[in-house]
Amino acid sequence: MAAPSDEEGAVGPRCHHRSTAMLDVPFLPFCAFLGTLGFLCVAMVGTWCQHWRGGFSLDGSSRTFNWHPVLMVTGLVVLYGAAALVYRIPNTWSGPKLPWKVLHGSLALGAFVLTVLGLAAVFRFHNSQGTPNMYSLHSWMGLGTVLLFSCQWAAGFGAFLLPWAPTWLRALYKPIHVFFGSTILMLSVASCVSGINEKLFFSLKNGTMDYKLLPAEAVFANTLGLLILIFGVLVVAALARPSWKRPDSDSPDSHQ
Amino acid sequence: MAAPSDEEGAVGPRCHHRSTAMLDVPFLPFCAFLGTLGFLCVAMVGTWCQHWRGGFSLDGSSRTFNWHPVLMVTGLVVLYGAAALVYRIPNTWSGPKLPWKVLHGSLALGAFVLTVLGLAAVFRFHNSQGTPNMYSLHSWMGLGTVLLFSCQWAAGFGAFLLPWAPTWLRALYKPIHVFFGSTILMLSVASCVSGINEKLFFSLKNGTMDYKLLPAEAVFANTLGLLILIFGVLVVAALARPSWKRPDSDSPDSHQ
Repeated sequence: MAAPSDEEGAVGPRCHHRSTAMLDVPFLPFCAFLGTLGFLCVAMVGTWCQHWRGGFSLDGSSRTFNWHPVLMVTGLVVLYGAAALVYRIPNTWSGPKLPWKVLHGSLALGAFVLTVLGLAAVFRFHNSQGTPNMYSLHSWMGLGTVLLFSCQWAAGFGAFLLPWAPTWLRALYKPIHVFFGSTILMLSVASCVSGINEKLFFSLKNGTMDYKLLPAEAVFANTLGLLILIFGVLVVAALARPSWKRPDSDSPDSHQ
Repeated sequence: MAAPSDEEGAVGPRCHHRSTAMLDVPFLPFCAFLGTLGFLCVAMVGTWCQHWRGGFSLDGSSRTFNWHPVLMVTGLVVLYGAAALVYRIPNTWSGPKLPWKVLHGSLALGAFVLTVLGLAAVFRFHNSQGTPNMYSLHSWMGLGTVLLFSCQWAAGFGAFLLPWAPTWLRALYKPIHVFFGSTILMLSVASCVSGINEKLFFSLKNGTMDYKLLPAEAVFANTLGLLILIFGVLVVAALARPSWKRPDSDSPDSHQ
């Protein structure tokens, strides 16, 4: 819920600083934890598809579909999250900024390429099975998220990496880019979770393997879904944390 | 993605103010738009259940289940969103604060009561049909969201409405409460979307009514899911917008 009030703000600066200090977590250990969590998500989605869903191929069968969850979780969630956090690394706060901009844009481009390959996998699977594309709410939300991501990347490239964008346009667009950065990640996470839920209903239908009976695969994939949610929330929290933002990044007068 | 860099911040204050002014949207018209969108979500989920899913009852049948989506969208998304936005209303920024705190807490409590009734509806339906509870990822995420919401309400009540919480505890807890306010809303929206997706796969299975063929019900409910997503994103955007926050709400020295 929103800020509850400022009665709790009616404290002296000393008390406020003590409270803030109590909440202080260093960025790099948090980032290492996030990296481990992201790696775990990728490893778990790969294990799910390899161990329970028959592995991977390019033949248009359900083993082609299996690339879809792996590429989406790796690209649209984990690599995207890494790209989003580049400017929170304290080393990026001094020295030339262009290399970090290029790293941010490159990681995001890598995430986008994996995402497009992930979409290609599910379209190829549907087409070879004669299944219609783009009918479920999961697919509408997922494709909307990827379209937003493509606009975000193109607009970010045009405004911040190409040299001829005027400064007023950059200043106008920057808060929009930052807001959609977190928003697209939350939409990606929601898409992944609804997709895992949908896939489990499709796959676990019979006898002792019914989803209702919570076989080992269901527990494993549900846990994967929760870990993806936690990863997304922690990345958004790290992006929102004031003390981890580039100093003076909101000041109109800050110079490179 | 995160803040791209500060090259675009390297502009004079005049240019920055001009850019900010171009993005300026007055809160109250935005709020009226959000209210209309929230009302539309509630009307559409009610229409879906009444027109396509057989209406409502308390007899343990699927018509009892129908209370679940209606109460969740109304409580955990729309009323929750209204509660979250109370402190963004400019009228709350002067005069005594206690009435607004009580309004914020009461709206959140109302949202919580509807949410619990919505959970009761699905448990009653499952139990009367002999269906296990709490097996899908949707149910794990949804119950996790409701548990977080209950902790958020209880902690908010204890810290900000009861008189004996020390000021250092309020200052410590406030940013956590604000962060989880937006996070719980995003989790609620993700839960609703995965639930609508799941329900459509359950309900639209045969002949011309197969989900794959996108009958009118599927288009209607998919559109509802997208509107819920847009509502959630706009509420989070309104909460995050600096110029709509209570002036000096982050200052440790601001007094009531």
